Amino acid sequence: MDIKIKSRIWIEADSRVLLGEGRVRLIKAIISTGSLSKAAASVRMSYKKAWMLIDSINKSSEKPVVVTTTGGKGGGGTQVTAYGKELIKAFDNIKKDCWTHLDGQAHKIEKL
Amino acid sequence: MDIKIKSRIWIEADSRVLLGEGRVRLIKAIISTGSLSKAAASVRMSYKKAWMLIDSINKSSEKPVVVTTTGGKGGGGTQVTAYGKELIKAFDNIKKDCWTHLDGQAHKIEKL
Repeated sequence: MDIKIKSRIWIEADSRVLLGEGRVRLIKAIISTGSLSKAAASVRMSYKKAWMLIDSINKSSEKPVVVTTTGGKGGGGTQVTAYGKELIKAFDNIKKDCWTHLDGQAHKIEKL
Repeated sequence: MDIKIKSRIWIEADSRVLLGEGRVRLIKAIISTGSLSKAAASVRMSYKKAWMLIDSINKSSEKPVVVTTTGGKGGGGTQVTAYGKELIKAFDNIKKDCWTHLDGQAHKIEKL
């Protein structure tokens, strides 16, 4: 049989969820759309849910992850900070390393 | 901030879920109670749901994980096979190693 060990990771800061798969997907959508409402739609999430997730991310984080700019040319929008970008890069790296680690464990099941 | 990287793992065999947290909890309850109905109750699961999970585990597995004995002294019951016991031991070991691996990754978030 083809054995695969899968995992889902998330990051907690002071016992509060900071980042998980859904939050990372939403942040990436904000980067590509520059707008919270467009990002929410692109990940099929209500605007309210997206707003609440972003609020939770910012409140769990030491430094702001997502900021809102108002007015100015283009009418403002929602942006991911440099810190937020580093954070999702680190999340993706940790996830990739975890999957590689688990690939190396499948033999423990296969040999049984 | 106190950063922790958490994970939930599961095992797939030929792309079908074989074991995850809920299934392992149920199997452990069968070991300690010797009965599917008592095991289901102890993990607050309906008998039907427990039966379906066990059926799914046995169908995804190369060898039987849980067997039912009928009649005889004591009226039969549900038992976890030696293979099933090895499987949950391996699952717990892999999970523990994964958590240790992820503990070693928290610095990648803390340093940002």
